[in-house]
Amino acid sequence: MSFAPSTAAADRAESFVSYSAAAAPIAFERPAARVTATRGEIGIELELRHSGRRALTLRYETQGDASLPALFVAGGISAHKHLAPSREFGEQGWWECQVGNGRSLDPTRYHLVSFDWLGADGSLDIALDPADQADAIAALLDALGIDRLQAFVGYSYGAMVGLQFASRHPARVGEVISISGTHRAHPYAAAWRALQRRAVALGALQCDESQGLALARELAVLSYRTPEEFAERFGAAQVVDGRVRVAAEDYLDHCGNKYVARTSPTAFLRLSESIDLQQVDPSSIRAPVTVVAVTEDRLIPLSESYDLIERLRGETRLRVLRSIYGHDACLKEQAQIDTILREALADCTSVAA
Amino acid sequence: MSFAPSTAAADRAESFVSYSAAAAPIAFERPAARVTATRGEIGIELELRHSGRRALTLRYETQGDASLPALFVAGGISAHKHLAPSREFGEQGWWECQVGNGRSLDPTRYHLVSFDWLGADGSLDIALDPADQADAIAALLDALGIDRLQAFVGYSYGAMVGLQFASRHPARVGEVISISGTHRAHPYAAAWRALQRRAVALGALQCDESQGLALARELAVLSYRTPEEFAERFGAAQVVDGRVRVAAEDYLDHCGNKYVARTSPTAFLRLSESIDLQQVDPSSIRAPVTVVAVTEDRLIPLSESYDLIERLRGETRLRVLRSIYGHDACLKEQAQIDTILREALADCTSVAA
Repeated sequence: MSFAPSTAAADRAESFVSYSAAAAPIAFERPAARVTATRGEIGIELELRHSGRRALTLRYETQGDASLPALFVAGGISAHKHLAPSREFGEQGWWECQVGNGRSLDPTRYHLVSFDWLGADGSLDIALDPADQADAIAALLDALGIDRLQAFVGYSYGAMVGLQFASRHPARVGEVISISGTHRAHPYAAAWRALQRRAVALGALQCDESQGLALARELAVLSYRTPEEFAERFGAAQVVDGRVRVAAEDYLDHCGNKYVARTSPTAFLRLSESIDLQQVDPSSIRAPVTVVAVTEDRLIPLSESYDLIERLRGETRLRVLRSIYGHDACLKEQAQIDTILREALADCTSVAA
Repeated sequence: MSFAPSTAAADRAESFVSYSAAAAPIAFERPAARVTATRGEIGIELELRHSGRRALTLRYETQGDASLPALFVAGGISAHKHLAPSREFGEQGWWECQVGNGRSLDPTRYHLVSFDWLGADGSLDIALDPADQADAIAALLDALGIDRLQAFVGYSYGAMVGLQFASRHPARVGEVISISGTHRAHPYAAAWRALQRRAVALGALQCDESQGLALARELAVLSYRTPEEFAERFGAAQVVDGRVRVAAEDYLDHCGNKYVARTSPTAFLRLSESIDLQQVDPSSIRAPVTVVAVTEDRLIPLSESYDLIERLRGETRLRVLRSIYGHDACLKEQAQIDTILREALADCTSVAA
């Protein structure tokens, strides 16, 4: 929207030079050439599923020229509108390993749209359904003048919202790529999240929510990762000053503290709850869906992805990865996810063309 | 020790009558005929691995005649000396499904010995090693005049202690049956337990440890059970008074409240820590070992049981169960565990004879 196609072409040239000058693996870690990006916010009114009509503010970011095919990109409840660094916004993004020049989600080939989840700023202390997020995205696309997405690329909660979007706004999306997400919350994963919320509630009793939120995050991290990874990374417990300290505690401390510094307890509670409200009837989805499942995912058993595939009525594709990173594979298995995204998006483009 | 063989014989007769009078499945649920039992306590001094020399009280219970082959029976950190009802102590025991007339651990065939874990009464606020428990059991056997156990039957923490016992007191045990236990704590399971302890610490900050302990127990229950069971038992989350309540929360509340009513936070903390200190070199064990592993166990990956089997030097037997109850299979899969125990104990008896 804010820059001409020639800018993107210049970026491609710059990128080429940069790749030649540096060792290839380092260049791949973070492309030196960056497209421009835009940020903005819009006010909307939305009928929320459990909480009535509300005035809401949506904060979005786009990368890549608006004339390119549009992709909506959404991650977990801790993800946000900033996918990767751009000229204007140089800070680290949550999905840098896939977003950038030469990567699967390439802003010189696609117009990438993303936003901050409803509730992410902690200002909404109400029940938020994943369907509400999907409707908010539809309103955002209206405001941006985007009739139809080439694809909705979602990971974790973002995949849940992508399925909701395809179900509720079928005319507006050509394809869904659903990575580590499902049509319904699993009762065991829901219980795990409910206990994380109890940790926040326990912390709140002493008017210091940060310790409760840190513990909640540490519990969440365990659910995102796997015993296989921990067995590789961590050794035996030690007795320190008469108490036992297990080997992963430094890492968990780090995860908890980092999270507390950037997350409001209310945002965590309401978005965590929102995952547990996920309910989509897969048979209501007509767009092609690529379901990416990870064998080691401790939140989404493989059987859930099979169930989703079986109940979808449109064109479907299943990709099963093995990864010691479990639910976090999407953020860690750069090469495998890259291949899957390219393949799914290429098919989608050829269908569209 | 406290009753003659004729008592046991009378019990067998009574048992027979009882089984004939009632429908077999009901009789199998809880044998009407009960042997007599003894309880007692002894004071010992023990050199603890991390905490120096201490005066300790051991509280034990026995069932079955002292002239019968002796079995030491030990369960998880929440288990205790009372395995099953007896004439003298009619209250529910923690392993009734295996202990009783006609069951695999039959007090008319074996002299069953059990005790309350060191630290279970909350009086020891020190680091307790599973090796300390093994040494305490050796001291208890001295006091009871038992030179040698026919078998050490351990489940969970009890299996860990059983491996310690066989390593540290090789002359005193004919066989180890290790159900859902290992030679070393897994770093992922250890992290899970460390976060349970943090929940207790968070509760203690507000001078109300019960809420923290309840949350810790709820987290522990998740680790003992499986997504497969939860998918069968629980449905979708609901919005109740503006908040999300997941389907398993009533069950988890029940588990937490029940645990808090009977457990001291100090006991939980120190025994939970103790699991994380487990370190036995399997090659130091000479007794035959039956390793019982459960595919769905979320605390002890199957690979850990394979590693234990590979590193044992004596006679070994591996039994792998499938169970939706995961780590709790030992308490829920009555028939499968019964078969395994009978087989292992019969082999052991024939070797001894």
